[in-house]
Amino acid sequence: MNTKKKQLRLGAFLHPTGHHIAAWRHPQAQANPLNFKHYKRLAQTAERGKFDMIFLADGVAVRDHSSDVEGWSRNGKLVHFEPLTLLSALSAVTDNIGLVATASTTYNEPFHIARKFASLDYLSDGRAGWNVVTSGTEAEAKNFNREKHLEHATRYERAQEFVELVTKLWDSWEDDAFIRDQESGVYFEADKLHIPHHKGKHFSVRGPLNVARPVQGYPVIVQAGSSEAGQELAAQTAEVIFTAQQTLKEAQEFYASVKGRLAKYGRSPEHLKIMPGIFPVIGSTEQEAKEKYDQLQELVHPLVGLGLLGWVYGGKDLSGYPLDGPAPEFPDDTNGSKSRLKLVSDLANRENLTLKELYLAIAGARGHRTIWGTPQQIADQLEEWFVNDGADGFNIMPPYLPGGLEEFVDLVIPELQRRGLFRTEYEGQTLRENLGLPRPANQFNNIANSAELAGVSV
Amino acid sequence: MNTKKKQLRLGAFLHPTGHHIAAWRHPQAQANPLNFKHYKRLAQTAERGKFDMIFLADGVAVRDHSSDVEGWSRNGKLVHFEPLTLLSALSAVTDNIGLVATASTTYNEPFHIARKFASLDYLSDGRAGWNVVTSGTEAEAKNFNREKHLEHATRYERAQEFVELVTKLWDSWEDDAFIRDQESGVYFEADKLHIPHHKGKHFSVRGPLNVARPVQGYPVIVQAGSSEAGQELAAQTAEVIFTAQQTLKEAQEFYASVKGRLAKYGRSPEHLKIMPGIFPVIGSTEQEAKEKYDQLQELVHPLVGLGLLGWVYGGKDLSGYPLDGPAPEFPDDTNGSKSRLKLVSDLANRENLTLKELYLAIAGARGHRTIWGTPQQIADQLEEWFVNDGADGFNIMPPYLPGGLEEFVDLVIPELQRRGLFRTEYEGQTLRENLGLPRPANQFNNIANSAELAGVSV
Repeated sequence: MNTKKKQLRLGAFLHPTGHHIAAWRHPQAQANPLNFKHYKRLAQTAERGKFDMIFLADGVAVRDHSSDVEGWSRNGKLVHFEPLTLLSALSAVTDNIGLVATASTTYNEPFHIARKFASLDYLSDGRAGWNVVTSGTEAEAKNFNREKHLEHATRYERAQEFVELVTKLWDSWEDDAFIRDQESGVYFEADKLHIPHHKGKHFSVRGPLNVARPVQGYPVIVQAGSSEAGQELAAQTAEVIFTAQQTLKEAQEFYASVKGRLAKYGRSPEHLKIMPGIFPVIGSTEQEAKEKYDQLQELVHPLVGLGLLGWVYGGKDLSGYPLDGPAPEFPDDTNGSKSRLKLVSDLANRENLTLKELYLAIAGARGHRTIWGTPQQIADQLEEWFVNDGADGFNIMPPYLPGGLEEFVDLVIPELQRRGLFRTEYEGQTLRENLGLPRPANQFNNIANSAELAGVSV
Repeated sequence: MNTKKKQLRLGAFLHPTGHHIAAWRHPQAQANPLNFKHYKRLAQTAERGKFDMIFLADGVAVRDHSSDVEGWSRNGKLVHFEPLTLLSALSAVTDNIGLVATASTTYNEPFHIARKFASLDYLSDGRAGWNVVTSGTEAEAKNFNREKHLEHATRYERAQEFVELVTKLWDSWEDDAFIRDQESGVYFEADKLHIPHHKGKHFSVRGPLNVARPVQGYPVIVQAGSSEAGQELAAQTAEVIFTAQQTLKEAQEFYASVKGRLAKYGRSPEHLKIMPGIFPVIGSTEQEAKEKYDQLQELVHPLVGLGLLGWVYGGKDLSGYPLDGPAPEFPDDTNGSKSRLKLVSDLANRENLTLKELYLAIAGARGHRTIWGTPQQIADQLEEWFVNDGADGFNIMPPYLPGGLEEFVDLVIPELQRRGLFRTEYEGQTLRENLGLPRPANQFNNIANSAELAGVSV
């Protein structure tokens, strides 16, 4: 391995049948995503390619934005595994690759989240990561006793307290608290227990956690929001950011903006890895890659395309608009994803697209960057952003699965390795070690035990 | 296999290092329960023994009831894996055995629970079961924004609506809804989607679930409460009951009481399996078994014993009472487990035990039945209850692990098989098939689709 050169970080972002909204219709795609053998093959393929991690998105409602049942019935992404159960199963059939699950701070409780990720970290011997998101759709609200979802600002305020509290729960026990001395009968050293006793605006949680401190101290904290509030939360708490950037210039601006916020939280720029999403279409020639892409685009039913685009508008029914006319005006703001809205409205305005052209433009990568070409051309594009401070690495979004990931591993990874940009062997055991991230100290170390156990009995 | 004779059902109830509260101090026990290799060995051993299922208890707080830190620090059961993540990992290294996790209806949301168990059912190809419990300790309440835990009656009312709603979410899609027709682009048949639109006293959840209908229709529903409210909930919804019974007479009364409640819910007695807990101590002679038991009992520190007993009292600090005096008077009622309180207070009164004798009496089996002897004697005891309508099977609680389970599989299982009481091969693929339980029909089959998708857009 070339240890001199700065190394790319790579995530394999696994959408059930592939990222393209028509992926399930591709003749070589696995159309049934509730299929563990499918995911086992994907995870082992990504590990063969020495990816840092696999990454699973999530939402707590069916993800469709069509307003009629015909649109719904053509959507191949409505049902899938729940990420934490799936990654737990994959931990048993992999050895080195990181396992990053999305979990919402809006419709979960901190104790459950702290516990499940700590459990996954032990199951995988230190390979867990948590992608912290807020939930911004009414479909999700309605599955959790609410009519409307929380306001953007409230969601982020809750998310910040949520993450802070989860780290306190992970720090309930010092790393060496459990001595398990069979002879004396002492299981843990009492002064190494720190009961959080958290009382905040959104949560009141005593603790301690009923899992020991995670193998990695904390599982790696990932974040995907790119709005102003999202960037600020990331600068405080995130170690990896997944982001959608279309041009090198935008990517550089985002990179500089986020890295520039770290100093005020006492953090080093190396301790937060920025990884834009990339939707790669690989061919033996550029022309073949383009044809592959067109083949997928032709499989997009208009109702499915309009359903996807309606989501960007914050839940607008677009079925009445002519496909060859302009996209209707975008709202000024949204209570859903602000960064996604800006990205797509910029795209529509910049390229003056028809409604159909616009939904096709996001049908594959949903606003992330699409690149097609030969393995060398793909590697060129990744290298350009990497060496010019546009990215620390990339989250690879295969168009269809398993083929799209296998091509990347077999054709692009070797090219990146030849250039000395990517590892040929894992450096460490934990995700944190492979990403080059420090292991966080326990925030309660050397603080007198405030357990006050007299108040703790049941 | 003897297909004529009625067959015993067996669960392997895996407490982290074994059921005895001093198990972790046993020289052959695994003292560190955050150890996946340990559980992998246990699950594969249970599967080798053709157990119907492994079963994991759970609580959402550290489980200790001592009032001082010295008692806590000697408790080897405070930290452990979270059951759903652990069973998901075990699903990848086992083929036939059922995977039953406890999850509370008090501090969870129905959408999450429906989804995670459906996901586990797909990961395991139809081997998931859900042990439905309510949470009755203040330690748990305080991890979820509450000072006090819910009243017993409210907990059961919430539990009943919770289970009903979870089955509606599992029935969101008919079994054959997903046709995945790549040619036409139709992924599911619209009239086979049933959006629950649930609005009840405790929950308002629209659905549908973002997982297809589970492999088993519903994962197997297990229940452990034995109070009046618990029996009634079980008669309505449970398919397996784990219960604590000390004598054949009590077991027969309980068996008759629960089975007698099924008719009014239109259910057959065969469709609810009653499985008392058994704490077996196995020796090559009765004397050797007794010595093994005594060896464990001698490892119990008084503070740990009093902490356990204090839990039965509903959280009472017993550290001031003389160990060789009588146990203090029991409360008339508790807001914790009513059936546990009755069981232990009956035991104390019946046998006129000192405080130390009482905590030692529950130090192994926590109120479940302890039997020691040769493999033949253990088999005799199990057979006696089984053929005399005291039980449909048993939930085996090994004193320490892995040894206690391995002895049972190697010595007692073959004896039960020789007697024609227990399978030598699994009968089916799913847990439901192995238990001889019917696959539930979808409650929305043949009901016109009330989806009203116009109201469903985001």
